[in-house]
Amino acid sequence: MSEDTTKAPEAEQLVRPSVPALDKVLGVKFDVLDDGFVRLVDYMGSDAAIVQAARVSYGKGTKKTSQDRGLIRYLLRHRHTTPFEMCEIKLHVRVPMDCWRQWIRHRTANVNEYSTRYSIAIDAAQQTEPSQWRRQAPGNKQGSKGFIDPGDGELLSKREREIQDASREVYQERLDAGVSREQARKDLPLATYTEAYWKIDLHNLLHFLSLRMDDHAQMEIREYAKLIGYEIVSQWCPIVWEAFLDYNMEKLVLSRLEIDIVGAIGRGDKQRAIEMATGFGWLKRGEKGLLRHRERNEFEQKLKQLNLPIPWKE
Amino acid sequence: MSEDTTKAPEAEQLVRPSVPALDKVLGVKFDVLDDGFVRLVDYMGSDAAIVQAARVSYGKGTKKTSQDRGLIRYLLRHRHTTPFEMCEIKLHVRVPMDCWRQWIRHRTANVNEYSTRYSIAIDAAQQTEPSQWRRQAPGNKQGSKGFIDPGDGELLSKREREIQDASREVYQERLDAGVSREQARKDLPLATYTEAYWKIDLHNLLHFLSLRMDDHAQMEIREYAKLIGYEIVSQWCPIVWEAFLDYNMEKLVLSRLEIDIVGAIGRGDKQRAIEMATGFGWLKRGEKGLLRHRERNEFEQKLKQLNLPIPWKE
Amino acid sequence: MSEDTTKAPEAEQLVRPSVPALDKVLGVKFDVLDDGFVRLVDYMGSDAAIVQAARVSYGKGTKKTSQDRGLIRYLLRHRHTTPFEMCEIKLHVRVPMDCWRQWIRHRTANVNEYSTRYSIAIDAAQQTEPSQWRRQAPGNKQGSKGFIDPGDGELLSKREREIQDASREVYQERLDAGVSREQARKDLPLATYTEAYWKIDLHNLLHFLSLRMDDHAQMEIREYAKLIGYEIVSQWCPIVWEAFLDYNMEKLVLSRLEIDIVGAIGRGDKQRAIEMATGFGWLKRGEKGLLRHRERNEFEQKLKQLNLPIPWKE
Amino acid sequence: MSEDTTKAPEAEQLVRPSVPALDKVLGVKFDVLDDGFVRLVDYMGSDAAIVQAARVSYGKGTKKTSQDRGLIRYLLRHRHTTPFEMCEIKLHVRVPMDCWRQWIRHRTANVNEYSTRYSIAIDAAQQTEPSQWRRQAPGNKQGSKGFIDPGDGELLSKREREIQDASREVYQERLDAGVSREQARKDLPLATYTEAYWKIDLHNLLHFLSLRMDDHAQMEIREYAKLIGYEIVSQWCPIVWEAFLDYNMEKLVLSRLEIDIVGAIGRGDKQRAIEMATGFGWLKRGEKGLLRHRERNEFEQKLKQLNLPIPWKE
Repeated sequence: MSEDTTKAPEAEQLVRPSVPALDKVLGVKFDVLDDGFVRLVDYMGSDAAIVQAARVSYGKGTKKTSQDRGLIRYLLRHRHTTPFEMCEIKLHVRVPMDCWRQWIRHRTANVNEYSTRYSIAIDAAQQTEPSQWRRQAPGNKQGSKGFIDPGDGELLSKREREIQDASREVYQERLDAGVSREQARKDLPLATYTEAYWKIDLHNLLHFLSLRMDDHAQMEIREYAKLIGYEIVSQWCPIVWEAFLDYNMEKLVLSRLEIDIVGAIGRGDKQRAIEMATGFGWLKRGEKGLLRHRERNEFEQKLKQLNLPIPWKE
Repeated sequence: MSEDTTKAPEAEQLVRPSVPALDKVLGVKFDVLDDGFVRLVDYMGSDAAIVQAARVSYGKGTKKTSQDRGLIRYLLRHRHTTPFEMCEIKLHVRVPMDCWRQWIRHRTANVNEYSTRYSIAIDAAQQTEPSQWRRQAPGNKQGSKGFIDPGDGELLSKREREIQDASREVYQERLDAGVSREQARKDLPLATYTEAYWKIDLHNLLHFLSLRMDDHAQMEIREYAKLIGYEIVSQWCPIVWEAFLDYNMEKLVLSRLEIDIVGAIGRGDKQRAIEMATGFGWLKRGEKGLLRHRERNEFEQKLKQLNLPIPWKE
Repeated sequence: MSEDTTKAPEAEQLVRPSVPALDKVLGVKFDVLDDGFVRLVDYMGSDAAIVQAARVSYGKGTKKTSQDRGLIRYLLRHRHTTPFEMCEIKLHVRVPMDCWRQWIRHRTANVNEYSTRYSIAIDAAQQTEPSQWRRQAPGNKQGSKGFIDPGDGELLSKREREIQDASREVYQERLDAGVSREQARKDLPLATYTEAYWKIDLHNLLHFLSLRMDDHAQMEIREYAKLIGYEIVSQWCPIVWEAFLDYNMEKLVLSRLEIDIVGAIGRGDKQRAIEMATGFGWLKRGEKGLLRHRERNEFEQKLKQLNLPIPWKE
Repeated sequence: MSEDTTKAPEAEQLVRPSVPALDKVLGVKFDVLDDGFVRLVDYMGSDAAIVQAARVSYGKGTKKTSQDRGLIRYLLRHRHTTPFEMCEIKLHVRVPMDCWRQWIRHRTANVNEYSTRYSIAIDAAQQTEPSQWRRQAPGNKQGSKGFIDPGDGELLSKREREIQDASREVYQERLDAGVSREQARKDLPLATYTEAYWKIDLHNLLHFLSLRMDDHAQMEIREYAKLIGYEIVSQWCPIVWEAFLDYNMEKLVLSRLEIDIVGAIGRGDKQRAIEMATGFGWLKRGEKGLLRHRERNEFEQKLKQLNLPIPWKE
């Protein structure tokens, strides 16, 4: 092929696929937190594109929709993940830097962030309502549980406004003194909002969502993740979204150890179940009965969810 | 945010960006080699999307097109690569496996390949015309140069057809005997065609093209790369394409050593230029004059391109 | 810091961590298939490195080994994957190209492959014993099941040797005629051996192993995966390896649908279990009873493994 | 291979490669900024490993060191980058979050960062000396140039201490009130130090260094990059480091446009050179002579470096 070749291409032209339900919200801001947002900028593909890639077909002979659904669910259930990479989405988001620091740890996305070297920092920081200060979780070192008394919250919120205002004042003083933007920003609070274009394929987006919609994720990023999932992905690829909830978000995983114990429960051998749990070190006792044991607790939750008896209770 | 929230989104809806010149070739097959093709399946973004991402703007205030051009050229010249990742393209390709083995080494793409575990292998292998057998390059261990005499080529092409037919026959015998497809394929020739969906962002596509359009790339993959570049990317993002040729494909790089010698040439100090080249070990002599030296040869080519004198010649 | 700064570094020098059990097999070839191998070339990290990264500690205060084990198992169980990326391994492998085509699809590794553009192709292709020809699986389009009768296998193996010899002969003829290596190779059989250095972090290696040690993986790559797992990773990071088997390879996953049915079984409500399965479309009947349904079959296997009754049987 | 196979491996055991010069600084802290550091934790490979990978050899027949040097320089000059991925390094770093936000944009590394969800934030923020406040660059929107008058700097530094102290006080108040750590941290200043393990292969590290040692990088991250380059990489892979400086850091790139003009200069055709520059739009004139033009300015710098005349300057 020489570079000036003029091709006479065969005539099987396609129309670019689109998703009408998604086109309706293109460019629309979905609010998150007190001043953040998520905004769909562009997308590529749909449920149909996944089926097409899985079949490496010619875009012609699509089968019945019911078969498409079965295929997508099969692919997701069996970790055939590459067809899901054939869909891509681009969002414009506004997020506190603190939250963005977690977000950006997902390395498989394309990112263009607002530059505070180049431009004046966005004049907004995420603010916390008096009723929204969360307590440190006692059991879980990296979580929160419940809320601070709103009376005490009043003071915390007042102090927050003061420190955010003071920080911004210092920032402005520096700019006024001629300090470079790249250095002036150094003491802005982590709650300062930033903006970014964020582009990712559907497979990696689902991975992001499965981690960030999870109860263990910090509340702030969970808000973003849920919005992206329930408002955008659910419209974009509804069959995928349903399968994702069924086979991923709401799945239950049993380890080899747990399978063995459930097997004993299943054949009614409570004694053997207790022996195995003892062997795993799950049933150590202190003065007040069973000692706390994280893995055993997790397992007990699973047994409850399955309506199966906990052999060592009763 | 609860999951059933109904948003009343603000009204700044966008129309999905498209590139009419590209829409015209959507789905159209561009032929490559004797039986391969490249076919555009979908795309996201355009020159404008790069500008938009670079400005992290709201899709509103686009400036004049002339400024867009300047910005894109600046970004590409200064390796601000992330905005180019905001564009994405999806191709359907048909390629000999031998060539695909090289292609797939670019790890930043999304891929769904035709499965010869699941389906009967494509019944086509790339065939070579009698005049198209390339000679082993004498100087370059991994290259080719010139062609075998077409008379000799006749025999080579005849033998090729024989071995391809025989291989296919063996494949068919295995299938007829009930051997699994995953095992039956094991002795198919590397020239057998495969097909794939291949999706990649523009930044990584340009990297692919800069390596595979290069003279050092094998001819077969070069054909594909040039087609993708000159027929598709040039239509998709014409400003980027022009900048890519100007600043990347057709650039000339001088090393620190070369800068020093050119500097001596520039101030007319031929003697110093020769001293430096000698110091680099570039001017060792044998019985028949200067010994071959790859880096010196490369430099001499650059001097010729710049119309600058070669100090050690004449 | 200027570039010529001489630092007077504080004295808390470390000794480079090593794993004696692994040092013993460094450089040793483990045979795979008829002429392939895996050979450990280098490694970084160990179980301890994962704990260290998880604690972002100073290499000092390591706690008791029993706590390390608990931490590693917790990390793996809860998908805290980044500490596992702190370990890296480098292998030298010899693999049929057909198998390598699957291997290379894992994009998160570093690879240097033997170049048949630069060098004469390795003169060996994987050969199949008469008793090792696998039958196409009837139910699973991409699998194999059982073996061809060895009597018939004799002929298949004989024909294999013939086509491999003929292909090599054609290859040699081309080289003798002066054809470039990059083109001469085009009709070599896919079973031709290649070699590569392959380097990958432990997290991504475990992902590779979980897919390629799986029963659904093709037998050839499964051999390599099992060897890497059971002979190398098990020696390198024994605590991780044990946790990987317990929580990943031998886990059992229940979907939301399956959880619901097990819940009904758990509380003894067989009728409700059947109703739900019917609602999912799992219990359609034809003339000969229940129609085949892949997802239901998968679920029945899980119930058997858990010693739980299948509500619609008996 | 069955899982309990006991191999009798052939005897060609290797000793694990090491770099004595690097072992000496293993674990040693190199200071950066007022309270940051870089500390080498582990490494894999060396100059020799690159050569080995390039040759896909058996670790045996290494050639003369002089040939190794030539090979490494050839690989780096011609963008054969995969052998450089065969070396890996692991660092422990302490960096202001502001700087870390830039660092983490390099997605090809493995990272474990100190968690302020799990632990109390590090009680240190980067402080700026009165003489170290940098002025906003007039021409370059994202850079700095020169310093604020130290007299004015006194006040800026005093105000910095105040806002950092006040922010920490607010943080402590929240913790004392029982607020979760994940939320308490939200108004810490960006200058707060964080720590991380950072692991990356040599190819991607060189890419990081080429961008972050560059004059356009922000001063803070440049300090880290230079230290990693000049103190660690230079010891680890001295041949690579020299080649990197010669062929990458200190290279000079001419675009197609610039090649054309230099070509005209080379053959003494000043008039043609001016015509071409005019055609590129580089020589527009205003009332005070030539208008500013970024690309022309860049080119004039290159001509100076090469001791070549600027055609439009007498």
